[in-house]
Amino acid sequence: MNKNHTQALQLAAAAREAAPAIARANSGQKNGALAVLAKKLISNAASILKANEKDLKEGQKAGLTAAMLDRLKIDQKRLEAMVTGVQQIAMLPDPVGGIIDGTIRPNGLRLSRMRVPLGVGLIIFESRPNVTIDAAALCLKSGNSVILRGGKEAIHTNIALGRCLSDSLKNVGLPPECVQVIKTTDRELLPELLVLNRYIDYVIPRGGKGLIEAIMKYSKIPVIKHLDGICHVYVDMEADLEIAKNIVLNAKTQRPGVCNAAETLLVHKNIARKFLPIIVKELKKAKVEVRGDDAVKNICKGIAVKPATQEDWATEYLDLVISVGVVNNLDQAIQHINTYGSHHTDAIITQDVDAATRFKREVDSSSVMVNASTRFADGFEYGLGAEIGISTDKLHARGPVGLEGLTTYKWIVEGEGQIRV
Amino acid sequence: MNKNHTQALQLAAAAREAAPAIARANSGQKNGALAVLAKKLISNAASILKANEKDLKEGQKAGLTAAMLDRLKIDQKRLEAMVTGVQQIAMLPDPVGGIIDGTIRPNGLRLSRMRVPLGVGLIIFESRPNVTIDAAALCLKSGNSVILRGGKEAIHTNIALGRCLSDSLKNVGLPPECVQVIKTTDRELLPELLVLNRYIDYVIPRGGKGLIEAIMKYSKIPVIKHLDGICHVYVDMEADLEIAKNIVLNAKTQRPGVCNAAETLLVHKNIARKFLPIIVKELKKAKVEVRGDDAVKNICKGIAVKPATQEDWATEYLDLVISVGVVNNLDQAIQHINTYGSHHTDAIITQDVDAATRFKREVDSSSVMVNASTRFADGFEYGLGAEIGISTDKLHARGPVGLEGLTTYKWIVEGEGQIRV
Repeated sequence: MNKNHTQALQLAAAAREAAPAIARANSGQKNGALAVLAKKLISNAASILKANEKDLKEGQKAGLTAAMLDRLKIDQKRLEAMVTGVQQIAMLPDPVGGIIDGTIRPNGLRLSRMRVPLGVGLIIFESRPNVTIDAAALCLKSGNSVILRGGKEAIHTNIALGRCLSDSLKNVGLPPECVQVIKTTDRELLPELLVLNRYIDYVIPRGGKGLIEAIMKYSKIPVIKHLDGICHVYVDMEADLEIAKNIVLNAKTQRPGVCNAAETLLVHKNIARKFLPIIVKELKKAKVEVRGDDAVKNICKGIAVKPATQEDWATEYLDLVISVGVVNNLDQAIQHINTYGSHHTDAIITQDVDAATRFKREVDSSSVMVNASTRFADGFEYGLGAEIGISTDKLHARGPVGLEGLTTYKWIVEGEGQIRV
Repeated sequence: MNKNHTQALQLAAAAREAAPAIARANSGQKNGALAVLAKKLISNAASILKANEKDLKEGQKAGLTAAMLDRLKIDQKRLEAMVTGVQQIAMLPDPVGGIIDGTIRPNGLRLSRMRVPLGVGLIIFESRPNVTIDAAALCLKSGNSVILRGGKEAIHTNIALGRCLSDSLKNVGLPPECVQVIKTTDRELLPELLVLNRYIDYVIPRGGKGLIEAIMKYSKIPVIKHLDGICHVYVDMEADLEIAKNIVLNAKTQRPGVCNAAETLLVHKNIARKFLPIIVKELKKAKVEVRGDDAVKNICKGIAVKPATQEDWATEYLDLVISVGVVNNLDQAIQHINTYGSHHTDAIITQDVDAATRFKREVDSSSVMVNASTRFADGFEYGLGAEIGISTDKLHARGPVGLEGLTTYKWIVEGEGQIRV
C-alpha cells in the first residue's frame, strides 16, 4: 500500500462515516452551520486573503497567465460575494425528507417516495477557490458528505477556507469530516480516490473537457457531468426575425466562454435569404467569426464568411466563432442537432406551434428552448437557487443540478402487518 | 477489427438509429404493436414451443439441472402468461411526454420538466425466456430502443420470440431495430457491446451476482442494477409480536430464493427473551436453519441454533437459512443494517411512531418497510404494473423500476424572445 492509497482510504472512510450525521441533520442545524460559515469567512478575511496572496505569488512564479491569476484571486469583494452565496443557500428550502409522491395500495399499504441525500460526493474542480465554499454549502444543505479537491494553484486558499468549513460544522455539533478539503497537491491521490466506490457515491468534475475525460477514464464511481456545450439555435421558417436576431446575438456573444453559449446557427431555407444577411452582418459587427456551409456562403456573398468544415459542426468554440448552416426543414434541423450536438441546450425560434411541439419532443437535449436564449440554461435562471453543475447524463439529474439534484429517493412502505400471499 | 467488434457496432448503431422513431411514437402506435405482439405469440405458439423443445433437448444433453430446465421451459400456460403480461403493459399509462412539474420565472419564461425515454438499452439476462418478451414490451412502451441478450441455453426460443417482436413492430410501421434479439451465443460479443457508450445509454443485467459483477467490470455504460438482497427485519421493543412473527415468517419463507426475502432478523434486547423462543421455533417448524449470535444462542438454549459468524451478516442465503442477532437499541439496529445490508429492502416492526420515523429516515435503503413484509418490494406490488428490475443505485431509479424508471426528463423553456442580460 502506497502513501496515496492509504490517504485516499482515510479520506473516503471518514467521509462515509460522517455521512449519516449530515444526512439526518435537520434544516435548523444545517442552516446554523451555514450562518456560522458566513460569519467565519468575514472574521477570517485577513488570513484567507493572506493565503490567497501566497497562491498568487507562487502562481506568478510558475508562469500562470493573467486570466488564470484573475480566476485564482480573492479580494474583499469576491469574499463578500462568497458570503452572500452561502446566505442564499441557507435560505433555500431543504430538499431532504420531502415526499415526491404517494399512494395507498389495495391491501392498505401506504407507499411514498422520500427524498434522501445521495450520500458521499467527490467534487473535483480547477483554480477558482469560490467553488470550494459554493460546493461545500450545497452539499451541506442537501445532507451530503463531501470531499473537495481543488486546483493545486489554489492550495493555500483552499486550506484556509477548509478551516472555516471545519470550524462551522464543529460549532453546530456536526462532524467536521462532512466536508473535507484535500490538503495535498499530489496528482496520484485522485486515481486512488476514483476507485473507492464502496465509500463514495458520485463524482462531480467541474472544469475543462480534458479533466472530465481523464476522470471518466479512471472512475469506478458514477460521474455527474457534461463534456461539451455545443448549443444550437434553429431559426424556423415561421420565426419572428427580430426575436431570432436578438436571441442569436445574445446566445453567441453575451458570454461566449461558457457552456450554454451557442456554437451553431441553423436557418430554414425558406427564410435564409432574408435572415442570413441581417444576422451575419450583426455577428460580424459583434466581432464574431462566421463559418458557413455552401448555402450560407452563396447567400452572404460580399460578406467575409469562412467555410465550415465537418469538424466545425462538432466543435465547442467557447469563443467569438459561430458555424452557420441552412437546413431544408425541421426534420433536418432536429437530426443535425441530435447528431452533432452535445445534448446540452438547444433552441428553436418559431411562431409555429406544431414546429415548437415537435422540437420540444424530439430534440434529445437536457434543456430545450422555444423563443428564448440558450444562455438561460443555468441553475439561478431556472430558480434552483444555486447549481453544482450542469448534467447531460440521462441517468439521474439532467440540465442545471441544484439541491434537488444532490438527492435521490427511497420508497417508504407503511402497513399494519401485511404479508405477501 | 474482429468479427464480434463489427457485430457489436452494427447492433448498437442500428439500435441508436431506430431510437428516435420509438421515442416519438405515440401511445396508440406503441399499444398497437403490443396488441399485435400478443396475437402473434398465440398464432406462432407451435413454432415457439418447437424452438423451446430444441433448447430443452440441448440443455439436457449439456447437463442442465432440473431446476434450470424448468426455468428454460415454455408450455402453453406459460406462453399465455406472457401474452397477459404484454396486454397488461399495453394498458399501463404511457410515461413519455408527461410533465413532472413546471413554473413560470419572473421574466415570463415557462419552465417544465418533460419525461423522455432513456434512449438505447442493453438488457442482459439468463435462462428464463419470458424475460425476452417482458423486457421488450416494457422498453417499447417507454419509448426505448433495446438490445436483448438472453442466455445461450434459450437461444432458439429467443430467436423465435424475436421474430414475433420484429413482425409486430413492422406491422405498425415502427423500425424492427427498436427491439433486437442477439442471435449469437458467442461470449466475446458482450464485452464489445459494453464499451459502446456512444450508442447505448444504459445496461440492465438480470441474473446472479457473478454476472452483474462481470458486467460492472467491463461496462463503460451506466448499469442499473442490484448486486445483493440482504434484507433485514428489525423487531423493535415496541413491536406487536403477532405482527412480528407473521412478517418474519413471510419475509423468510414465502419465497426464499428471491432478492426481497429476509436474510437477517434483528431483535431488540428488551423483547428478545419473549420473542426469540417463539420465532425460532416457528422458523424451525418451517425448516429454516437458524444461525444466532451469542445472545440468541443463550436465550434459545434447548433449540438447535447454529453460531452466526461475521460472514453470516453479509451473506445473501437465497435459501431456508436466517441469521439472527440481538441489538441493544434502535441505533445499533440501524447501524447494523447500513453496515451489513445491501441497501435493498429493510423492515422495522414497531408500534412506536418515533422509532418508525427514525428508521424511515436513517436506514439508507431503496425500500424501507414499517410493519410490512420485505417481500412487498416488487414492481407489481408497488402498483408500477411491471418491473424491469430492482435498483439499489443512488443515481436515477431506485427500488422497483417500472416504466417511469425507463425514462428521464428534459427541461423545456418557453418564452417570447427573452434574452439574458
